[in-house]
Amino acid sequence: MPTTETTGPKRSIATVCLSGTLEDKLIAAAEAGFDGVEIFENDLLASADSPETVRERCRDLGLTIDLYQPFRDFEAVPPDLLEAGLRRAEQKFGVCERLGADTVLVCSSVSPDTVDDDDLAAEHLNLLASRAAEHGIRIAYEALAWGRFVNTYDHSWRIVRRGDHPNLGLCLDSFHILSRGSDPSGIRVIPGEKLFFLQLADAPQLSMDVLQWSRHHRLFPGQGAFDLTRFLDLVLTAGYDGPLSLEVFNDVFRQSEPHQSAIDALRSLVTLQESVTRGGSERARARARIEDLPAPPRTEGFAFTEIGVDDRSEADVVGALAGLGFTHTAQHRSKPVQLWEQGEARILVNASADDPATGETAVTALAVENADPTASAHRAERLLAPILPREHRADEADLASVTAPNGTAVFFCRTDAREGWLHDFSPTPNPAGPGTGLRAIDHVGLTQPFDHFDGAALFYRSILGLQPEAPAEVAAPFGLIRSLSIADAAKRVRIALSVSVLRRGEWSPEVRDPQHIAFASQDVIASAAKARDLGLDLLEIPANYHDDLEARFALPTRLMDDLREHSLMYDRDEDGEFLHFYTPVLGSRVFLEVVQRIGAYAGYGMVNAPIRMAAHRRHRRADRLERDA
Amino acid sequence: MPTTETTGPKRSIATVCLSGTLEDKLIAAAEAGFDGVEIFENDLLASADSPETVRERCRDLGLTIDLYQPFRDFEAVPPDLLEAGLRRAEQKFGVCERLGADTVLVCSSVSPDTVDDDDLAAEHLNLLASRAAEHGIRIAYEALAWGRFVNTYDHSWRIVRRGDHPNLGLCLDSFHILSRGSDPSGIRVIPGEKLFFLQLADAPQLSMDVLQWSRHHRLFPGQGAFDLTRFLDLVLTAGYDGPLSLEVFNDVFRQSEPHQSAIDALRSLVTLQESVTRGGSERARARARIEDLPAPPRTEGFAFTEIGVDDRSEADVVGALAGLGFTHTAQHRSKPVQLWEQGEARILVNASADDPATGETAVTALAVENADPTASAHRAERLLAPILPREHRADEADLASVTAPNGTAVFFCRTDAREGWLHDFSPTPNPAGPGTGLRAIDHVGLTQPFDHFDGAALFYRSILGLQPEAPAEVAAPFGLIRSLSIADAAKRVRIALSVSVLRRGEWSPEVRDPQHIAFASQDVIASAAKARDLGLDLLEIPANYHDDLEARFALPTRLMDDLREHSLMYDRDEDGEFLHFYTPVLGSRVFLEVVQRIGAYAGYGMVNAPIRMAAHRRHRRADRLERDA
Repeated sequence: MPTTETTGPKRSIATVCLSGTLEDKLIAAAEAGFDGVEIFENDLLASADSPETVRERCRDLGLTIDLYQPFRDFEAVPPDLLEAGLRRAEQKFGVCERLGADTVLVCSSVSPDTVDDDDLAAEHLNLLASRAAEHGIRIAYEALAWGRFVNTYDHSWRIVRRGDHPNLGLCLDSFHILSRGSDPSGIRVIPGEKLFFLQLADAPQLSMDVLQWSRHHRLFPGQGAFDLTRFLDLVLTAGYDGPLSLEVFNDVFRQSEPHQSAIDALRSLVTLQESVTRGGSERARARARIEDLPAPPRTEGFAFTEIGVDDRSEADVVGALAGLGFTHTAQHRSKPVQLWEQGEARILVNASADDPATGETAVTALAVENADPTASAHRAERLLAPILPREHRADEADLASVTAPNGTAVFFCRTDAREGWLHDFSPTPNPAGPGTGLRAIDHVGLTQPFDHFDGAALFYRSILGLQPEAPAEVAAPFGLIRSLSIADAAKRVRIALSVSVLRRGEWSPEVRDPQHIAFASQDVIASAAKARDLGLDLLEIPANYHDDLEARFALPTRLMDDLREHSLMYDRDEDGEFLHFYTPVLGSRVFLEVVQRIGAYAGYGMVNAPIRMAAHRRHRRADRLERDA
Repeated sequence: MPTTETTGPKRSIATVCLSGTLEDKLIAAAEAGFDGVEIFENDLLASADSPETVRERCRDLGLTIDLYQPFRDFEAVPPDLLEAGLRRAEQKFGVCERLGADTVLVCSSVSPDTVDDDDLAAEHLNLLASRAAEHGIRIAYEALAWGRFVNTYDHSWRIVRRGDHPNLGLCLDSFHILSRGSDPSGIRVIPGEKLFFLQLADAPQLSMDVLQWSRHHRLFPGQGAFDLTRFLDLVLTAGYDGPLSLEVFNDVFRQSEPHQSAIDALRSLVTLQESVTRGGSERARARARIEDLPAPPRTEGFAFTEIGVDDRSEADVVGALAGLGFTHTAQHRSKPVQLWEQGEARILVNASADDPATGETAVTALAVENADPTASAHRAERLLAPILPREHRADEADLASVTAPNGTAVFFCRTDAREGWLHDFSPTPNPAGPGTGLRAIDHVGLTQPFDHFDGAALFYRSILGLQPEAPAEVAAPFGLIRSLSIADAAKRVRIALSVSVLRRGEWSPEVRDPQHIAFASQDVIASAAKARDLGLDLLEIPANYHDDLEARFALPTRLMDDLREHSLMYDRDEDGEFLHFYTPVLGSRVFLEVVQRIGAYAGYGMVNAPIRMAAHRRHRRADRLERDA
């Protein structure tokens, strides 16, 4: 993998962010393109490699060792414990020398043996820094959010200033500062040369014990709720010129394939830098600069969405599209790909694209309409998106495309371009179908494999410049489902990501990682009626659901009748209403939806997802019984 | 499955405890032996069965419908919302009539529209109860721990008393009461006939938002940290005579196979009843009574532990036992089972017992030494443990045994009985081996499949009458590991359970769900030295670990030399010290450990588990390279 940068700040990652042994982690960090690592002590202790071997390995991989961490519970303790601490420190300094690491992270003490005495803490840290200096090592003191007495960055800075040693400075960690709600603006008064190290982590806003929050739920920048752009701006404005380093403790990342995590991690950092270059101070913008990164595309809707089918599912998918009033308007010149259209909704049915590993019917590609596909693809590449090798004939369009973490291809298109993707299709003689009033693709729903949810959100956000909407969680029949949708400002591209809160076991729904394409209608009741006339098999919604709906919302009788008759579902919030219906599952895991948004309803009817899932299960079961009979 | 009880209180379970559709849940509850269910509204809404069909289905399954729940945000609201609430209620009362459910759970309001006015709340609930009475329905009012104004049971009782209607009473939920730290002793002053319903849930002690804690982390009684024995005692003492019902929201149970969850659930209830019959008030003891449940066995150590081997792993296992100085003392008369002994440690090596599904080498059985094996087996059966069918010849011992949730067989034995299990073995002519100073089995370590951890802890606790020790969590190379050990008071039977915090995905350690047997030595250094002389391959522990140990603990040089020389690990706490070493993994997932406890150290060296795991991975990798070469 190429590194994204040759200039600008160094980018590092703590080994604790990644799963595996130290060896696995170093390889993953290097291959993603990081410049350096923080060595988390436990990773070294479990390694059979000597510090010298680790140093050599890092050098071979092009990684510097920027920090050794953590050294704990040292300062402001009684004399015997100070002695023991210094003894421990000497051993660690020896390890650092062997590793070639020149900075050690010292966390503020959580020990019951520490006392509330800043002068003593400063004196002890001064002593530690003097000892460190003999080895050419610097001490970066960090206030843990749950430190016994020192738990804010300004407090740690007072102690470091009082400790007054050239080898004593601060480590700032965004989690420890932002999780406590501290105002980070005071960072600007800390001299840049006293900022020895910077650890970046995001996190969702959770109301829980801060230690547990920190140890289990950190995220890479941009995946959580913290304002890291402002934070990094402040740190760079203060004059920090060390590495931008990620330190993320996360239960999911701890067990997922480290190569992908490392790519997500670096992508998050580059995206964070980009955001600083857009809004930060002049000094911060200069320091955060990224060469040659095109701006995010101005997305103008979906150019098309592709469903990969196999011999068995093709008839189902094509039948459902016909039932929804789509017209098979064109055929690819060289591949078994049909184009189906209605309004601005375009679906490719690709009989050569089903996942070869699983033979699954799936949403295999999204194509995003935008002004400059080449620049967008270049941006994606700079953000570490794998460029998809496409075979195309000399006279066919060379579509710019990349692969999302779960394997979905993302194309950048201009449908109206002269040599655009439509050029590869020959029109069919089919007369325009009847239509059911569908205008465009409203959203695409992609259930992510368990390990890829946060990474997928980051991917779409970063590559396409989309913004996350409100996350949600719903109790579905076979376990909790978490969802996060991301969209452009104009809501022309909406991608609804979801994932099971726990990785599925053997007891689980029959549809794994379902995916769907939702079409927008301006009159979903009329759309449903027409679709039924065209013979579409609508997913049947149970009477109990409609009875409850009637009791909850006191909807007009006429509307209730329509909802019942056409198996529609309904949701409402402060901003508007949402009506929607579904097809059964087509093939292994794809279904279609038709939605109508009334007013400014911005959601996706997630509250109805459990009803839909149970209905899908019933339908598939009945279907199987029928086939078996 | 037989129901365990024909007398005593009814036992019920809320459908929300179990995974699946309503149909799956009802079958699971009935098959486990529950008498009734609470129907959780969302389960009904997603069902295609009418309320009448659900009623019929429950009747056919032998289940009563004891509660319909929840009805929310009703009381102390402005007039228009009261009207809307009553309209909703009428529809729900209709559903209840069709279901044949005579009680509706009404949760204290969390709505911003509710006001802090007990009189108004009482008036509204009185009105609701009057309406309910017309349908022959009772209202059970419950204070949610996060209710806007009403969030304690005593407050809900004041309102119910003021509401003064025969069809208005209380629902007590142990979670809502104990999670807030409320003193439950006031329950005794509530008239029993006003206690309409009782929901039981346990939970681990967590420091987090109570709503999230409730919705994600509840457990079945005995699986958490709450004193449910006292709670149930108080409720029964007050005169409650309705069902004992479980309402547990748990992320893991929501996605695990519901039949096993329902068995765990019922087992937890019976065990809870048993604990009340031991310590509760006279009235509570009488109400909680369980017919024909023998007392927990007085365990006296492990009689034996069995390792199932296959053709490839047998040599490794037998080689390791020989290397540890065990003697192959006897051979089973009819099966390919060897008995290996040293001190009181007895290991069966069973060449016919490896898991037929996976061909895995595994700890296939534990045998617990106790005075009355027949009574213990009967107890286990009464506690829903599956009795293991064993083939044995007429002249062989009919060993009483049951199966733990993960498939491990648990035998009840008297080794010194005349017709005991040893009777089935013929002594070998082998001379007594050299020994390495091993005295007995210290503990057995069983990694559980993801869905079975809490159920396994409950199983061993309940069937064997063991007590849980402190839970722990450790960051291992491939993800977090959670552990809980359970032991008898004398610490002669210790079982260390562990599980990965997230279900393993494709990126994971090479050893899945490892299991081990740990032997107790009084001088582990001598044991290691002798074992090495006997040719045992010790698991190699890296120098980095020992270097850190030296820095942390300032151990005597002589001891450090020994630890390094024999690849020993070390831990220390306030009560004592722990030294231990391991063999490599034998076959697919079994290894052996030798431990020495100094002082009153009661742990298992969990802090060293990540080092051990990384070492096991290295060893297997090297081993494979060697075999491939």
